[in-house]
Amino acid sequence: MATIFKKIQMFENITKLTSRQFLQFSVRNYRHRRALMYVPGSDERKINKIASLNADCVALDCEDGVALNKKDEARDIIRKKLEHIIPTANGDIGVRVNSIESGLCEKDLEVCLSGTHLPHTVLLPKVENSDHLKWFSDRINKFIKTDQKVNLIIYIESAKAFINLSDICKTAFTLSECNKFTPTSLVFGSDDFCASIGATRTEDSTEILYARQKLVLCAKAFHLQAIDMVYIKYKDLEGLKRQCEEGMRMGYTGKQVIHPNQIETVQESFLPALATVEWAKGLLDAFEEHQATGKGAFNYRGSMIDMPTMKQAKNIIDIVKPVKKKST
Amino acid sequence: MATIFKKIQMFENITKLTSRQFLQFSVRNYRHRRALMYVPGSDERKINKIASLNADCVALDCEDGVALNKKDEARDIIRKKLEHIIPTANGDIGVRVNSIESGLCEKDLEVCLSGTHLPHTVLLPKVENSDHLKWFSDRINKFIKTDQKVNLIIYIESAKAFINLSDICKTAFTLSECNKFTPTSLVFGSDDFCASIGATRTEDSTEILYARQKLVLCAKAFHLQAIDMVYIKYKDLEGLKRQCEEGMRMGYTGKQVIHPNQIETVQESFLPALATVEWAKGLLDAFEEHQATGKGAFNYRGSMIDMPTMKQAKNIIDIVKPVKKKST
Amino acid sequence: MATIFKKIQMFENITKLTSRQFLQFSVRNYRHRRALMYVPGSDERKINKIASLNADCVALDCEDGVALNKKDEARDIIRKKLEHIIPTANGDIGVRVNSIESGLCEKDLEVCLSGTHLPHTVLLPKVENSDHLKWFSDRINKFIKTDQKVNLIIYIESAKAFINLSDICKTAFTLSECNKFTPTSLVFGSDDFCASIGATRTEDSTEILYARQKLVLCAKAFHLQAIDMVYIKYKDLEGLKRQCEEGMRMGYTGKQVIHPNQIETVQESFLPALATVEWAKGLLDAFEEHQATGKGAFNYRGSMIDMPTMKQAKNIIDIVKPVKKKST
Repeated sequence: MATIFKKIQMFENITKLTSRQFLQFSVRNYRHRRALMYVPGSDERKINKIASLNADCVALDCEDGVALNKKDEARDIIRKKLEHIIPTANGDIGVRVNSIESGLCEKDLEVCLSGTHLPHTVLLPKVENSDHLKWFSDRINKFIKTDQKVNLIIYIESAKAFINLSDICKTAFTLSECNKFTPTSLVFGSDDFCASIGATRTEDSTEILYARQKLVLCAKAFHLQAIDMVYIKYKDLEGLKRQCEEGMRMGYTGKQVIHPNQIETVQESFLPALATVEWAKGLLDAFEEHQATGKGAFNYRGSMIDMPTMKQAKNIIDIVKPVKKKST
Repeated sequence: MATIFKKIQMFENITKLTSRQFLQFSVRNYRHRRALMYVPGSDERKINKIASLNADCVALDCEDGVALNKKDEARDIIRKKLEHIIPTANGDIGVRVNSIESGLCEKDLEVCLSGTHLPHTVLLPKVENSDHLKWFSDRINKFIKTDQKVNLIIYIESAKAFINLSDICKTAFTLSECNKFTPTSLVFGSDDFCASIGATRTEDSTEILYARQKLVLCAKAFHLQAIDMVYIKYKDLEGLKRQCEEGMRMGYTGKQVIHPNQIETVQESFLPALATVEWAKGLLDAFEEHQATGKGAFNYRGSMIDMPTMKQAKNIIDIVKPVKKKST
Repeated sequence: MATIFKKIQMFENITKLTSRQFLQFSVRNYRHRRALMYVPGSDERKINKIASLNADCVALDCEDGVALNKKDEARDIIRKKLEHIIPTANGDIGVRVNSIESGLCEKDLEVCLSGTHLPHTVLLPKVENSDHLKWFSDRINKFIKTDQKVNLIIYIESAKAFINLSDICKTAFTLSECNKFTPTSLVFGSDDFCASIGATRTEDSTEILYARQKLVLCAKAFHLQAIDMVYIKYKDLEGLKRQCEEGMRMGYTGKQVIHPNQIETVQESFLPALATVEWAKGLLDAFEEHQATGKGAFNYRGSMIDMPTMKQAKNIIDIVKPVKKKST
C-alpha cells in the first residue's frame, strides 16, 4: 500500500506535465484495463462482491467459468444483476459470452443484452476469422434495441486465429463503423492457445513467445489494448508480479485475473515503477530544455537520447495519467 | 529402458480413459512420427538395417545425404528396396526427393514411384511457394499409376518459405482434395534456414526462435504435425534430450534424426513424462467429477483449472494413445 | 587492434578459396555496411570528421538528430558538403531524410538531391505501407535530374510497418525496376518501435525478439541486408559487443551507430571470429575432399555435416571477402 501511496503522490506532480504541448496528443480511444477479472455468471454471491473488488474491468462469465448445465441460469442472473451494477459501476463491466462455434453465443447475447442497462463491453472468445466478426456484428445489431454501442474485446486463442490476426483486426474496424460495437482490446488466451498447438507452459513462457509478442504488435498496429495471459497459480503473488512485468515490457497494458487476490498485484504492476516515472519525467524536462537550444540528439544520464526514447517516456506518462484522473 | 517399461505400464491404465465421452474426438489425420530418421538411398548396407532401427519413420534419402555423382544409383536402390521394405514395415517409410529447384526431383519421383509398392510418404525439401506444390501435384499424379495416395511431408527451410508459409499450407490442402497426395507434416529445416538468413546456431537456438515457433503455429492451424530440427552433435544424447523437450514444449511432436543412436532418445523424449501423464489423467478424472456438480472453474493441485487446461491434458493423453496401440 | 590484424592476415589465406567452384555464386547485390553511423546534418564540425571515422556507411541526418528549428540549415549544409565528400568517399555516404508523414521529407529530398553529386544512398525513416514507397518513388524521379539511381535503406519502426513488412519489400522491388532507386537494406528502428507498441527495452531485448527476428527473415527473403538496432549506452563497449554478436547470430550483418567510439567495436564484431572463419575454411576444405569420394553426409569435428551446414560456412566466407578487398 505504501508503494501505491507513493505512486499516487507522484502523479500529483505529473499533472503539471499536462500543459506541455508535446503531451497534447489525442488520448487513445481505449479504456485502460489493467486487471480483467472473471466472475462466474452463475454465482450470485461472487457477483454481489464486484463493487468491493475495485478491479478496472470485470467480466461476468457465461463461458469457461460456467458449467454446461448452468448456462441458462448464468444468463438470467447476469441480466438481472446488470440492472444494479451498471448504474453505479466504477470500472468497466463486461459479459463474456460463449464462443460462436459453441452454439451458445446467440442465446447469451439475446438474454444479456435484453435488460434496461447494457454491459459496457462484450468479450467474445475464440474468434478465429473475419466471418466470426460478421456473425457477431449481425447479432449485436439485432439484440441492441437502442443506438448505444458496446465495446468489443476479442479473444485470440488458437493457431488459426493467429494466422488470421491482421484480417480479424481489420474486419473489426471496418464493421464497427456502421454497427453497434467498438473494438477496444485483444486478449491473449494462452491456455486455449497452448491446447490448440499442443504446447506446454513453463514459468517463463518462452515456448509461446512468438504468439505472445505477435499479439501485442498486431493490437498496437490497430490501436487496440493488448491484455496478457492468465497466471493460474493464484497463490503465488511473486510469480504473478514477475509475469505482469514481463508482459508490460512487451507492451501489454493489462492482464486477465482469475482470483480476487490477484487484482491488487496486477493493477499495481501495470503502473510504471516510481523510478521509471521519475526517469520519464526528467527526460521530458531535459528534452524540452534541450530542444530549445537547437541541438537534436542529446545525452541524458549517460545515454544518447533522441525522439524515439522521448516517445517512450511519453508513453509512460500516458499510462499514469488516467490513473491520476481516477484518484481525484 | 526401465523408464520406457514404466511408461508402457502406464498406458495400460490409460486405455481405461477411452470410454469417456470427452476423449471421443476424432483422431487427427496424421501419423505420429516421433523420430524421422534419414538413411542415404545410396547405402544398401544401412537400408538393410532399417527394420532393426525401430524408428517411427524412416526417409530413404535422395537429397543431402547422397553425393551428386550417386543420385542415379540411389534412386535404383530405393526402388528395389521398397519392394521388400513396404510389405513388412512397422513404421512409416518415405522417400526424400531432391528439391524442385535442383532439377533432380522429377527423375527421383519417376524412379522411386515406379515399383509395385509405393513409399507411404514423399518428403519434399525446400518448398518455397505454392507453385512448387502445383508442380509436385502434377508430377505425383503422372507417376502414380493407381488410385493410391502418398503422404506429403513439406520442408520449410528458407526465409522465402516462411514468408509464404500460410499460402503453402492452404495450397497443399486445396490441391490434395483431388490429387494423389495428403499433406501430413511440416519439417523445420533449421540448418538450411540458418544458411538462408545467415544465422549462426547456438545450443539454445534463441536466434531462430521466431521461425521455429512460427512453423509450429502454422502447422497446427492446418492440422499438420510439426517436426523439429536436427541436433547435429549426434554423440551428445543429453543435449539431444534437452532440445527434444524444448521442441515438445513449443508443440513439436517429432524430430529429425541423423544417426541411429539418436532414435531411442528422441522417441522416449516425445512421450510425455510419467508425471505429466499422471497429472493429465488425474485432471481429467477430477474435471469429470467436478463437471457433474455444476461448477465451472475449479482448483486442482493449487491451480485454477478451466476448459483450456483440460484440453491440454487431453492432448497429452492423445500422444500416448497411439503408442499404446503399437505396443499391444 | 591485434585481433583485427590477425583477422586481416587470415583473409590473406582465405583469398585462396576464391578459385573454388562452390564459391563462384554471384555476390549479393547489397553493399556490406557493418556500421551505419549518424552525423547530424546541422553540425559542420562533425561532418568534416567523416573521413577520419572510417565507417562503412555514414548517414548525414535530417531527421531525429536535427532539431525542428535547424532543418533548413541542415539541408543546406548537407548539399554543400556532399560536393566534397562524395568524390573522395571510402564508404557509403547517405542522407537520412525526415519521414513522409512529418511533412518535411519532400523539401529534404529536393535540397539534398539538387547538387552535382548525389549521395550514394537515401535512408527513409518510418515507412509504414506501400503507399509511402509510391510517394517516395514519385519524388525521387522528380528530384534526380540524371539517369543515376540511389540506394534506398528502409526503416521499419512501428507496429503498422511490421504488419505490412512483406508488402513493403515487394513494392520496393517492383517500383525499383523502372524508377531511380534500388532497395538495399532494412533497418530495425527499435526505439521508435518500442515507443509504438509501448514496450520497455531491457539489456537482452527479449521483449522485442519477435520483431527483431521477423525483420531479418523478411529482409533475407527479399535479398536485403538487415541492419540491427542502436545500442544507446555509448560508453559501454562490452555491452555493445555483446549486442552486436547477438544480432549477428540472428542474421544481421550491420548495426546503427550513434557515437564514433562505437564504430570500431561494431565493425570488428561484424567480422566473423577467427575461430569461426577457420572452422568454415576447414569445413569447406573437408567437404570438397569428401564430395569427391561420393559419400553425402559426413562427420567434421564430431558433428554430422551436410549441404546446409556447408552453406553456412560459405556465408561466413562471403562476409570476410569484401573486407579483404578493402584491405588490399
